[in-house]
Amino acid sequence: MRDGSARVGVLRDGEHVLDVGEKAGRLKLKLPFDASDMLALISSGAAGLAAVRKLLQSKGTDLALAGLKLLAPIPRPRKNVFCIGWNYLEHFAEGEAIRHNGQDLPAYPVFFSKAPTAVTGPYDAIPYDAKVSEQIDWEVELAVIIGKNGKNISENEALDYVFGYTVVNDVTARDLQRRHGGQWLKGKSLDGACPMGPWIVTRDELDPNNLRVVTRVNGIPKQDSNTRHLYFKVPRLIAELSLGMTLEAGDIISTGTPPGVGFARKPPEFLKPGDLLETEIEGIGRLENRISG
Amino acid sequence: MRDGSARVGVLRDGEHVLDVGEKAGRLKLKLPFDASDMLALISSGAAGLAAVRKLLQSKGTDLALAGLKLLAPIPRPRKNVFCIGWNYLEHFAEGEAIRHNGQDLPAYPVFFSKAPTAVTGPYDAIPYDAKVSEQIDWEVELAVIIGKNGKNISENEALDYVFGYTVVNDVTARDLQRRHGGQWLKGKSLDGACPMGPWIVTRDELDPNNLRVVTRVNGIPKQDSNTRHLYFKVPRLIAELSLGMTLEAGDIISTGTPPGVGFARKPPEFLKPGDLLETEIEGIGRLENRISG
Repeated sequence: MRDGSARVGVLRDGEHVLDVGEKAGRLKLKLPFDASDMLALISSGAAGLAAVRKLLQSKGTDLALAGLKLLAPIPRPRKNVFCIGWNYLEHFAEGEAIRHNGQDLPAYPVFFSKAPTAVTGPYDAIPYDAKVSEQIDWEVELAVIIGKNGKNISENEALDYVFGYTVVNDVTARDLQRRHGGQWLKGKSLDGACPMGPWIVTRDELDPNNLRVVTRVNGIPKQDSNTRHLYFKVPRLIAELSLGMTLEAGDIISTGTPPGVGFARKPPEFLKPGDLLETEIEGIGRLENRISG
Repeated sequence: MRDGSARVGVLRDGEHVLDVGEKAGRLKLKLPFDASDMLALISSGAAGLAAVRKLLQSKGTDLALAGLKLLAPIPRPRKNVFCIGWNYLEHFAEGEAIRHNGQDLPAYPVFFSKAPTAVTGPYDAIPYDAKVSEQIDWEVELAVIIGKNGKNISENEALDYVFGYTVVNDVTARDLQRRHGGQWLKGKSLDGACPMGPWIVTRDELDPNNLRVVTRVNGIPKQDSNTRHLYFKVPRLIAELSLGMTLEAGDIISTGTPPGVGFARKPPEFLKPGDLLETEIEGIGRLENRISG
C-alpha cells in the first residue's frame, strides 16, 4: 500500500480501507496469516476472519480508498479459475423453446477453466493485440471464492464452503474459443482476460440468489440480468465440481454469464482498443477495464 | 528423503540418486534455489542446472533409488496441467481417410486442462469410487516441462523454453468427460487422475520426436505407438499455447495420447479396482499405478 507492496485490506464504509497488517502491528495483535496475502487469510479460516473482525472494532487510521491501487482480490490463484458455461435461462419460456426444439435442458453444468495468468485487477487495462484476436468479448459473472477444502460436498453443506463472492469478467476471444477443436481453454485464457474484484464480499453479507448483473460498454448497457436466473445454483455447482475432486480454500468458481454478450448480438459486436468495459454486480461492486491500445 | 521430507534428487546411473540439498551442504555450495522444491530449481534457470551439474561431479554418498518414495516430479503445479486432445494420426492413410470423409485435418490443436489436485506420484494408487465414475480410462502421454517464462513464442525458439520431459497418464472418467456439455475439465480432473514421473529428463538428454509410448493393463499391451506420430509437434504446441498467454517456468504440457484407449475398444474396457496400469515412454521411464479398492 503506502510503500507500493500488496496488502490485505478491509473496505470499512465504502470510502476507507483498513490496512490489516498495519493495524495489527499498531495493536500488537499477532495475525494467524500473512497480511500481504489474501489466500493466506482465506486459508486461515475462522481464526483469520475473527482476527480481522477484532481489528475492525478499532477506529481511526484508515486509508482513503481513492488513494489506493486495487489488485484483484486474489491476484494469483493457485490453479485455473473454474468457470461455468451456459448457466442463465432467463425465462421459463426460453427453457420451453429449447425443449420443443428437441434439446433437453442441461442435466449437468458445463465446466471449463481460465489460466491464472489471465487474472488482472478491477481497473486494469485489458491487453489488445490484433495478431492474437480481433474478437474480444465480455461476460459479467458472479464468482464464488471457496473458503475451506472439501470433496464430495453435498448441496446442503455447500454454502459452508464459501468464503465470499466477487465479480469476474470472463473476457473471451471468440475466434480462439472456436478454433481449438471445441474446447474453450485457449480462448478464455489470454493474459488479462480475467478482471476480478473490486473486492470479496464475505458470505455472511450477501445472498447470491438475487443480485442484478450488468455490463456496459462505453456506458451503453449490454448485459442486464439477475443471479436469480442462474440455472445451476451455487450449491449445485459446488457439489458437482467437488465430486471426486478436492476443492481448496481460495479456489474461484465463476458461475456463468447472462445473455447480451457481443458475439450473439445482431450484428456481432467485439471490443476495440479504447473501449471502456464496466461489469457490475449488485451488492459487490463494479469493474472498469479499458481495452488497451 | 531420509527424514520423510520432499527433496530434489538426481538419478545418476539408473539405481542411485544424488540428494541435491544434502550434497550441496556437504560441499558447502550455496544453491540458487530451495532444494526441497523442483519448481524452484526449474525457475532458477541455467544457474540452478549449473549448480546441480557441479554437484554431480562429486562421487559417493548417493541414495539407493529402491529405498526412496518418488513423488511426482512437480507434486503441485502452479496452475492446471495443459493437455492436448486428438494429437496422434498414426498413418498418413488415416489422415487421408479423415479428409475423404469430408472432415478437414485439424488446423489448430485441442487444448484443455487438468486441475493440479489431480497430480499424483509415479507409483501411487489411483482412487476408485463407483459413486463418482465407473468409466476410468488410461491415456499415456509425453509431457513437456516449461523452463522459462514466455509469450508469443515462435516455433523456432520453442525448444529453448523447454526444461525437460516426463510421462503423464491423462487418466479420464469418460462418463464425466461426456456429461458436462462437451467441455472435458471435469472428467479429466478427479483426484489422482494425473500420475506423473517417474522423473524429468532434461531437454539436452532427449529427442522428443522418436520415443515409443506404451500402456499396459495387468501386463497386457493396450497402447503402443511412437511420438513421431504426434500431429502437432512440441514447438507448434508451445507456439499456439503461448499466443497471447504467458507460459511460465514449471508449466506442464501433456501432448496427447495415441490410439488404444479403453472407451474406443470393442467392446469398451474400463479400469477396475485392483488393476495395474503401466504407462511408459522410451528414454524417460515407466509409471505403475494400481487402481485402488
